[in-house]
Amino acid sequence: MESIVIIGGNAAGLTAASRAKRINPSLDITVLERLPQIAYSTCGIPYLLSKLVEADHLISFTPEKFQEERGIRVHNQVQVNAIIPGRKRVEATRVDTGESMTFAFDRLLIAAGVRAHIPNIPGNDLKHVYSILSLQDALRLQQHLETASTVGIIGAGYAGLEFAESLRTLGKTVRVFEREPHVMPTIDPDMAQIIEFELRRFGVEVFTSAKVLALTGQDGRVQGIKAVSSLGIVPADLVLMDTGVSPNTDLVADTDIRIGLAGGIAVDEHMETTVPGIFAAGNCAETFCPIRRRPVLNAIGTVAAKQGRIAGENLAGRRAKFRGSIGTTILKVFQLGVGRTGLSSREAAIERIPCVSARIEADDRASYYPGTSKIWIKLIVERESRRVLGAQAVGYGDIAKRIDVAATAISSGMTIDDLAQLDLAYAPPFGSLWDPLLVAAQAVLRRMD
Amino acid sequence: MESIVIIGGNAAGLTAASRAKRINPSLDITVLERLPQIAYSTCGIPYLLSKLVEADHLISFTPEKFQEERGIRVHNQVQVNAIIPGRKRVEATRVDTGESMTFAFDRLLIAAGVRAHIPNIPGNDLKHVYSILSLQDALRLQQHLETASTVGIIGAGYAGLEFAESLRTLGKTVRVFEREPHVMPTIDPDMAQIIEFELRRFGVEVFTSAKVLALTGQDGRVQGIKAVSSLGIVPADLVLMDTGVSPNTDLVADTDIRIGLAGGIAVDEHMETTVPGIFAAGNCAETFCPIRRRPVLNAIGTVAAKQGRIAGENLAGRRAKFRGSIGTTILKVFQLGVGRTGLSSREAAIERIPCVSARIEADDRASYYPGTSKIWIKLIVERESRRVLGAQAVGYGDIAKRIDVAATAISSGMTIDDLAQLDLAYAPPFGSLWDPLLVAAQAVLRRMD
Repeated sequence: MESIVIIGGNAAGLTAASRAKRINPSLDITVLERLPQIAYSTCGIPYLLSKLVEADHLISFTPEKFQEERGIRVHNQVQVNAIIPGRKRVEATRVDTGESMTFAFDRLLIAAGVRAHIPNIPGNDLKHVYSILSLQDALRLQQHLETASTVGIIGAGYAGLEFAESLRTLGKTVRVFEREPHVMPTIDPDMAQIIEFELRRFGVEVFTSAKVLALTGQDGRVQGIKAVSSLGIVPADLVLMDTGVSPNTDLVADTDIRIGLAGGIAVDEHMETTVPGIFAAGNCAETFCPIRRRPVLNAIGTVAAKQGRIAGENLAGRRAKFRGSIGTTILKVFQLGVGRTGLSSREAAIERIPCVSARIEADDRASYYPGTSKIWIKLIVERESRRVLGAQAVGYGDIAKRIDVAATAISSGMTIDDLAQLDLAYAPPFGSLWDPLLVAAQAVLRRMD
Repeated sequence: MESIVIIGGNAAGLTAASRAKRINPSLDITVLERLPQIAYSTCGIPYLLSKLVEADHLISFTPEKFQEERGIRVHNQVQVNAIIPGRKRVEATRVDTGESMTFAFDRLLIAAGVRAHIPNIPGNDLKHVYSILSLQDALRLQQHLETASTVGIIGAGYAGLEFAESLRTLGKTVRVFEREPHVMPTIDPDMAQIIEFELRRFGVEVFTSAKVLALTGQDGRVQGIKAVSSLGIVPADLVLMDTGVSPNTDLVADTDIRIGLAGGIAVDEHMETTVPGIFAAGNCAETFCPIRRRPVLNAIGTVAAKQGRIAGENLAGRRAKFRGSIGTTILKVFQLGVGRTGLSSREAAIERIPCVSARIEADDRASYYPGTSKIWIKLIVERESRRVLGAQAVGYGDIAKRIDVAATAISSGMTIDDLAQLDLAYAPPFGSLWDPLLVAAQAVLRRMD
């Protein structure tokens, strides 16, 4: 009986475990997870904080239930300390008892996720300064949330903005600090300004070009934030950091498992590392960007789950291939939907790809249909090949559909000419005779003629 | 100055006129429309009947306003009687005065739309029996609607079902008769049965395998419907026919303008007919199906508008190409969304394409997120090439997105393997970690292994 060991009990690890076991039920699979909970929705944490959902609803499986239903052994609260590829074993410690454990494997999957990147500023070790990466982090934060009234959020990426909404919904004073000139640096400024409008409309204070220099405190607890652009020290009795994440690669440091140029564990299209029989998946691993044609980092649950599925198939002896990811993201910011896929104008400029882009404003449905709402769409197109490289959409109506269509078009290498003629679905309750995406394509084409 | 004459003042004709004038403002363009209104949303008629919107809201332009804003002459209530290609002119009659008119053209566009196909049954000429193809038809029906209490709808295609909802919403007794074993014959029975459930849930009486044999009446007014499967004569003081449409090709009968095998005016990819300089667009023309690789009929506004745009570019001297249409349709049936694109299982069988299909049931968003709803998705895949050929979705949640993504995948010739790994947008308010479309793709793949 072959032994599979999987390090990490969330999206990538458990998807891989389930998939491998389903393909080959005779596999002996062990999942090792450092934290108490497994199998929960990290993306649901903002809605846990805003009390829209309860923690139990975010958890799909307890370790016991997963083991019982899937026939896969799960050790939670087990921290892996070392991978020894030559001896095909991992060494670990029980977090609660300190007991040492050793697990032998025929094949190994590393799905260790990310760690928070905490800026090296004075006061970063004060109490009530949080990074929220796990359900455990969120539950710990929740205990303190009742007594906090003024929250500073450092970094306005998608987690930062979701947390801003959650905490504002609870009635807190919320101040967001972004060091770049606009929130959501992964989308272009002409779209980001609409998000800033929405944040301010709901009473969130937004500071941009506002690199945080220090956190100040008293009695070891955070009390204020000093940023480049703000006047003096802005009060905050709670601080959330959304200041980036790094792949958890500690375990491979002293092994032949190579770290790639993007900074994650290097994998081939089978999710196999440079050591045969050892796979990596999820946010600790790099992902292939088919637009840039090179490995990148893309720390998001959907990619982790897809990589996990591919890794699981290959752990079970298949040779499935991962086709890569193009950076599709969506989030809700109060009443506004915000989505992006492919390259932004800025990312295309970094790659030195000459592009043509256009932004349009449109109704998301037939203008006369009740409930129709405004959306904005931007398309980014490679000038020479005419291929669609990126799309962004924000708005009060249905933007998810347009982002997913654009993601599909980008993945298939579609040109703007083809996109402009897509046979999309129309009836007044669902869209427009000319879908806003087609109107955006026409706007780009006018600039290309 | 070159003269363009356009027969037909709705989606195809006016889009073509606007596009041609924008590209070459020196063109002298005349639009001839037989009915009083132009430039209205035919797809909005069901919502006019249910009083959700008013007639004025459906109309984008009066003839005068169109002429004033776009510099395009519009003659409404002018019926074209003959096209004389050799002399490059059309002969027409003013509907209101009977006056004869002649229009000379350098280039001509025929965008004459469709006519209703009325079944040849006893009673089809009774009063209060309607086919609704134009706004004028709808306004005429509306005058009689107040006094009608029991409505029979013959044919359960998308118009028939939309009218069923509209009239039921007004409190009428509504009975739908479909000669096929299920409603919406353009989608497969395993999906159609969900629509039937929804219709019945809202009190619509649905008769399937119920070919209508005769309409009965008194004093020249309809009073009942006799169908194959029903017991005796079912009362109805109003009857709507959704029994198919045929391309309006009368005008080309005695010319060298060829009618294609599918029954519409034959056009090349430039929307040009077999007579150089004479174009056709919209529902009177055939459309190219890139899946079947042959001309088909597809009487729908989105295709008409796209064909009109291409025709307009070519009327102005360009050589734009129409890329065809794949039969994407969507409609609302009470609280249910219903969509389809590409080929159904039945259509694939007619083409003798061996297929694999699967239907799944899923939540449209993260299961714990408030307001999440059930949807069903079916995918149809060509066994040998593994290409996605068709998709259908019905449900109480967001099905439009999944249909549009499938339409994009089908248009680009994507395989089921590629579709299964699409990098689609996920956050709990918008979708699931594994989008239902990806889950459906996995279900198909399990049947292909």
